[in-house]
Amino acid sequence: MTIRIGILGYGNLGRGVECAVRQNEDMELAAVFTRREPAQVPVLTANTPVYSIHEILKHQKEIDVLILCGGSATDLPVQTPEYVKYFNVVDSFDTHANIPQHYANVDKAAKESGNIGIISVGWDPGMFSLNRVYADAILPDGASYTFWGRGVSQGHSDAIRRIKGVVDARQYTVPVPAALDAVRRGETPVLSTREKHTRECFVVAEPGADLAAIEKEIKEMPNYFADYDTTVHFISLEELRANHSGIPHGGFVIRSGKTGWESEHKHVVEYSLKLDSNPEFTACVLAAYARAAFRLHQDGISGCKTVLDIAPALLCRHSGEELRRNLL
Amino acid sequence: MTIRIGILGYGNLGRGVECAVRQNEDMELAAVFTRREPAQVPVLTANTPVYSIHEILKHQKEIDVLILCGGSATDLPVQTPEYVKYFNVVDSFDTHANIPQHYANVDKAAKESGNIGIISVGWDPGMFSLNRVYADAILPDGASYTFWGRGVSQGHSDAIRRIKGVVDARQYTVPVPAALDAVRRGETPVLSTREKHTRECFVVAEPGADLAAIEKEIKEMPNYFADYDTTVHFISLEELRANHSGIPHGGFVIRSGKTGWESEHKHVVEYSLKLDSNPEFTACVLAAYARAAFRLHQDGISGCKTVLDIAPALLCRHSGEELRRNLL
Repeated sequence: MTIRIGILGYGNLGRGVECAVRQNEDMELAAVFTRREPAQVPVLTANTPVYSIHEILKHQKEIDVLILCGGSATDLPVQTPEYVKYFNVVDSFDTHANIPQHYANVDKAAKESGNIGIISVGWDPGMFSLNRVYADAILPDGASYTFWGRGVSQGHSDAIRRIKGVVDARQYTVPVPAALDAVRRGETPVLSTREKHTRECFVVAEPGADLAAIEKEIKEMPNYFADYDTTVHFISLEELRANHSGIPHGGFVIRSGKTGWESEHKHVVEYSLKLDSNPEFTACVLAAYARAAFRLHQDGISGCKTVLDIAPALLCRHSGEELRRNLL
Repeated sequence: MTIRIGILGYGNLGRGVECAVRQNEDMELAAVFTRREPAQVPVLTANTPVYSIHEILKHQKEIDVLILCGGSATDLPVQTPEYVKYFNVVDSFDTHANIPQHYANVDKAAKESGNIGIISVGWDPGMFSLNRVYADAILPDGASYTFWGRGVSQGHSDAIRRIKGVVDARQYTVPVPAALDAVRRGETPVLSTREKHTRECFVVAEPGADLAAIEKEIKEMPNYFADYDTTVHFISLEELRANHSGIPHGGFVIRSGKTGWESEHKHVVEYSLKLDSNPEFTACVLAAYARAAFRLHQDGISGCKTVLDIAPALLCRHSGEELRRNLL
């Protein structure tokens, strides 16, 4: 059976979902919904209708799972509880501190409608969460570490762009190699913010701008940069476009733990991602969990779920029998 | 509520489970069952009863989950379908080719009895299977690789010990660094058996034994060594005991895949384990899945399950709310 996917919001993430759906033979892109003028939205898939978000309820019967591709700051807190009233939905809500509230809102609406809402799907939260939980369950006497990067932080890049005299900027979050190595050796250091990550900024300034002032403002910016060792490189717009136009990211979840009657044995579990495109990988995770949402709904299950609540086999296009024979 | 664990079979794995149970505050070791004379079995936990396997059915009411710590060759194919008639069970059956048959046998008996049987729990099959399935589901256009080691292969060590003139031996399986590096770079090489792993043997020979003949017999042994580049080191018994008495192991599951409309972006997902003690880590995984077996049975679910069928949250001592707040 083909799973009919709808996409709400056609930015980098929405386009990534479109590409992911194309790679999954059991899925088809049924429609894209947008806040923009539909005719202005350049979808890649031939013959895929683009509708205004205001028309979305007319297309309820054409969609098995709606993938919400908006942002966590203002879109998803409203959209996910709203659209789970009418659709099975999957979102990538990633404001960690607000997940419990978001979960409660979505769960209530989903249970009332009989739909499934899977929230916080992606790689962190998402694949990294899974690995934190598996490793914590297996090695209760241990310590876990999450490192991000090397990769582009959109939020930090935006913060630099707001500084007077800055034309454009790209900020990379970089794990500190010495910290990563210590954790990998099974040591359990207490690491400050500064000891875990550094921040590297590539900045295009206006002609004649006060570069020293810009650099100072970046390095002293509270929350974003003040707690980190930050380096600033001023480059030309051409160089930024040539060498920093991608959205790579990645990171590491590492847990080390001890076993044995006298805690005499050490174990290190490491999960890492190296991603050329952050939004496209996130989109692939969303597509896999859309398959799970479809299957759970077929089984009559409703409510809000996270990646922690979903059996791995539900994500995979292969049958249980194939999985046991070939991948177990 | 405390989960009352029984252990059947008290070798390296059984002792590992005993240590794991001690680390999990919501578990207690209720009893150890053995084929040996119970008085001869030196359990570590004070006041834990040791019973003969022949008495096991008398203790059905004292055990929530029975962890089967026998071998995959002859013990588990018989024990798991047998004891799931009376207990929720977890095993570490690891003969990949026979998993479908073992699953069918356990599923039938488990459904008849209303119990849960979780099979093939450990790290491969087990954690490595999970990572193969997750990565396959997320990156359908890709290739997966599993490397084992550096670690002791019990089967290969035993094969060497059976050679005339050999007193004792330890065999390490070692991934080939160049192959590992190529896969990590996101290349998708076709690798022969010889290109993926080498085998390193530490052998203690009888005084006056024909070392050249032993080395030749090892290197030409079909299935075990003939398809690999194998090195043989003759060492003293003292050196073997001093430097090769542990049972370390580990390995890597790596998937690389492409995304984007033109497959223009590459992604590498890597999961790795570095284990001081293979049986103790396997035991920790068994303990976590025993928790899941207990919870599934409480929910009225029966039948055979594998790690692929079980939601991660079920493994973890923390509540769903705690997980969403702290680990998601």
